[in-house]
Amino acid sequence: MVIVGGGFGGLFAARALRRAPVDLTVVDRTNHHLFQPLLYQVATAVLSEGDIAPPTREVLRRQQNARVLLGEVMDIDLTAREMTIETAGERERLAYDSLIVAAGAGQSYFGHDEFAAHAPGMKTIDDALEVRGRIFGAFEMAELENDAQQRATWLTFAVVGAGPTGVELAGQIAELSRRALTGNFRSIDPASARIIVLDAGDAVLPSFPGRLQRRARRDLGRLGVEVRLGTMVVGVDADGLDVSLEDGSSSRIEAKTKIWAAGVQASPLGALLAEQSDAEVDRAGRVSVRPDCTLPGHPEVFVVGDMMGLDRLPGLAEVAMQSGSHASRAIARRLSGDTVERPFRYRDLGTMATIARFRALAYYRRLRLTGLVAWLLWAFVHLAFLTGFKNRVAAVASWTVAFVGRGRPQRTITERQVFARMREIEAAVAARRSGNERAKHPV
Amino acid sequence: MVIVGGGFGGLFAARALRRAPVDLTVVDRTNHHLFQPLLYQVATAVLSEGDIAPPTREVLRRQQNARVLLGEVMDIDLTAREMTIETAGERERLAYDSLIVAAGAGQSYFGHDEFAAHAPGMKTIDDALEVRGRIFGAFEMAELENDAQQRATWLTFAVVGAGPTGVELAGQIAELSRRALTGNFRSIDPASARIIVLDAGDAVLPSFPGRLQRRARRDLGRLGVEVRLGTMVVGVDADGLDVSLEDGSSSRIEAKTKIWAAGVQASPLGALLAEQSDAEVDRAGRVSVRPDCTLPGHPEVFVVGDMMGLDRLPGLAEVAMQSGSHASRAIARRLSGDTVERPFRYRDLGTMATIARFRALAYYRRLRLTGLVAWLLWAFVHLAFLTGFKNRVAAVASWTVAFVGRGRPQRTITERQVFARMREIEAAVAARRSGNERAKHPV
Repeated sequence: MVIVGGGFGGLFAARALRRAPVDLTVVDRTNHHLFQPLLYQVATAVLSEGDIAPPTREVLRRQQNARVLLGEVMDIDLTAREMTIETAGERERLAYDSLIVAAGAGQSYFGHDEFAAHAPGMKTIDDALEVRGRIFGAFEMAELENDAQQRATWLTFAVVGAGPTGVELAGQIAELSRRALTGNFRSIDPASARIIVLDAGDAVLPSFPGRLQRRARRDLGRLGVEVRLGTMVVGVDADGLDVSLEDGSSSRIEAKTKIWAAGVQASPLGALLAEQSDAEVDRAGRVSVRPDCTLPGHPEVFVVGDMMGLDRLPGLAEVAMQSGSHASRAIARRLSGDTVERPFRYRDLGTMATIARFRALAYYRRLRLTGLVAWLLWAFVHLAFLTGFKNRVAAVASWTVAFVGRGRPQRTITERQVFARMREIEAAVAARRSGNERAKHPV
Repeated sequence: MVIVGGGFGGLFAARALRRAPVDLTVVDRTNHHLFQPLLYQVATAVLSEGDIAPPTREVLRRQQNARVLLGEVMDIDLTAREMTIETAGERERLAYDSLIVAAGAGQSYFGHDEFAAHAPGMKTIDDALEVRGRIFGAFEMAELENDAQQRATWLTFAVVGAGPTGVELAGQIAELSRRALTGNFRSIDPASARIIVLDAGDAVLPSFPGRLQRRARRDLGRLGVEVRLGTMVVGVDADGLDVSLEDGSSSRIEAKTKIWAAGVQASPLGALLAEQSDAEVDRAGRVSVRPDCTLPGHPEVFVVGDMMGLDRLPGLAEVAMQSGSHASRAIARRLSGDTVERPFRYRDLGTMATIARFRALAYYRRLRLTGLVAWLLWAFVHLAFLTGFKNRVAAVASWTVAFVGRGRPQRTITERQVFARMREIEAAVAARRSGNERAKHPV
C-alpha cells in the first residue's frame, strides 16, 4: 500500500500500520516531516530547520514494513490502482491496493499567484528560510538606507492573515524587533519597526471563542502590533500593498517585507481524485469524502488531513494525525477480516496559539486559558509532539535563549539571500529612478 | 577607521579596539561571523548554520565604538584613503584614517573555476549547505536508482584535498554513512558508501608532523576512507573526476558527489593593494606585508589573516586572530603617541584536526596527542572559541546526539535543493541517452 505525504496525516497513518502485515511506501516530495506549528519560529530565527524537520526516513527507521521514497506524485489512476511518480528526473509507476492520500495544503493567494514573489507564504521550510532572510535582511537594509522614508518602509512588516500563523509570526517579529535586536544597530532603532497584521475578515483568530479573540487583539496591541481587519489585499509589489477597505475605499501600505499567511489550498491531487470519482472539491480544494474518510466509490482510497473535506473540520495538525490514524486502523481491520465501516470521529483536544513569550491562548471545550498558564501548556504540548529527543532538547535550549534571554540563535542569512535582496533593491531603485513606481503608486 | 571582513582577523581586530578612542566600521559581505573550523560539521548535518555563524553585529553589540555595515568592498584608493562599497545596490565611498584588511581567502580551483559547479568548495555557509544537500541528496538518489552501477556512483563521495578540511569532512561522511544512516534505507546499504580523499601531494595533513600524518592515514583507513595521494584532478563533471597520477598515467573516478577542499586564494583585494604599493602578491594571492603587518609605504594600512603573506605563516584561525589583534594594538598605541614599530610574532598554540568521533590529532611544539585525549582537547578548545553561550550549549547537545548517539540533527534538505538535484540528474540522463557522456568518458 502507499501513503502520499509525510506530514502529520501521512506519518501518523504510517505509524498506525507498524504492526500490520503490509508493505508500505511513503512518497514525499521533500526528505523531511515538517512540524508546521513551529514553522514561524524558524522564520523568526528561534529554531533551526533541523529542529522541526526531521528526515521522514529517520522517523520511520525502525518500522521495517515501511520504505520512504523521495518523489512527486504526478498522476493517480483510480481504475488501474496505480500512480505515476517523478523521482530523480524519471517517471515511474507505483501500484497500490490501499492508498492514503495525505498531501496536505499549500498557500493560496486567492487567484493572485503573482503576489507570491513579493509576499512569500509560510507552508514549507523553504518559505520559512526565505521569510527569515527577508526579515533580517530588511533590518540590514534599513541600517544602510539614508533616506528616512525608505528606511521606514524597510522597517515596516506586513503580515497578511490574522489566523494562528499570522498572529504568531507578527508577535515574534514584534518581540525580535523590541528585544532580540537591542543594541545591534547604530543608525536605526529596530524597536521602531511597524508590524501590521491585515485580514479581510472581522476577527483575529476567527476560529477561537470570542473572548480569546478579544484577548489576542489586546495582547497584540500591547506588543505594538497594528491589527487592521476588514482590509482586503488587492495588490502586492516590491514596496508595499494596495488594500481595499470595507467601505469600498482603497489605501496603500508601504512595507518592503510582506508575508502571506492568509489562505490555504489543498493539494491539486484532490481535484485529480474527484475527477475520477463521485467526490467533489470545495473552493479550498478539499475532497468531499465519506464519513470513514474514503473516496466515494473507492473504499480502498482514503483522503486525510488538510485535503479532506469532512464535517467542516479545521485544517489542524490534530485533525491530520487523527484522520491518518483512522484510515490506517480501517485498513488494518480489513486485513484481519473486519470490513465494518466506522465513521471518523474527531476528538477535539483543544486549540492554542502563542502571541508572545509567556503569553498564549488555549481552549478546550468550555475551558479558556490565557497568559502564562496557556503558554506553559503550549510549550509542554509542542515539546511532547516534536519528533525526536534531540529536537526537544534543542527546542528547550533555543526557547530558553530566545524567551528567557534575548538572543535569536538562527539569524544567519546565506550569501545567496543577501545578494538576491540587493539585486531586488537595485531593480527597485532603477524603477524608481525611471519614475514608473512613483507614477503607479503615488504616496 | 575601517576593518574589512568579519572573520577571525576582523573580529579580533575590532574587539582589541573596544577601549580605544576610535570610530570603527566593520564592513562584511555577509551578516555573520563564521567559525570556519566547524564548517564541515554544518555540511555533515551535525550543527546548524546558526550554531557556527552568529551575526557580526550581535557579537559586537556592546562595543559602542563599532558599527557593522553589510556591503562588499569594490575598490580601495590608498592615495585618497577611501574605499568604494557596494551596499543595497548603491555604491558609496567610505573614508578611513587607519585600515585593517582582513577579507580572508576563498576556494581556489587552480585556474579551473569550471570545476566549481560540480565540486562545491568549503569556505562559506552557502558552500556548507550546498554540500549538505548534495551528500544527503546522493543517498536519496541511490535509494531510488535501479541500475547497480549508477547506484554505486551515487554512493561514491570524492573529497579533493587532504588538508584538515578534507580529512575532517571525509571522516564525517564515513561516520554518517556507517552510523547515522543505519536503518534508514531499504534498497541500499549506506555503509557501503565509498569515500575517497584525493591529493596531488604525498601526505595527509601535510602541515602536521610525520608521525601524526601516518596516524591520520591509518585512522582514515580504519574508517574505510580511501586515500589516494599523488593524484591530481584534471577534470570534473557531473558523474566523476578525471585524474592524472604521478607516473603520468591517467584514470577516472566515478562519483556523483565531489567536494573541493584543495586550495585557497586570498581575496582579490590583496592584488588591489599590491598594485598601489610596493607589496607583492604570491601565487595564492597573499600580500607581502612588512614585519608589523603593514603595507610597504602605507603604515596606516594593515593586512592580516589569510590575506597576509608573512614568514610563511599558515592560513589558520589562530594566525588571523593574533594578527588582527596585533594590528589593532598598533593602531591604539599610535593614538596614544607611541609610534614605535613592533613586529608581529605568532605564538603557535598548536594545531589539531579530528578524524572521527573520539579520535583526533594535536600537536604543540614537541607534544603529540592522538586518540581520545586529543579529541577531548579538540572539543574543549572549539567550545571555548565558539562565540556565544547558546552556541556552546547547542554544540554540546548536537555533539552528544551525533557522537555519543548516532543522530544527525540537521539533515533537512530544502525543496529548492531537491529539485535542483533532480533537474541536474534529468540533464545527466538526457546527456547519457544522447551518448555524449559515454563517448567523452569511456568507463
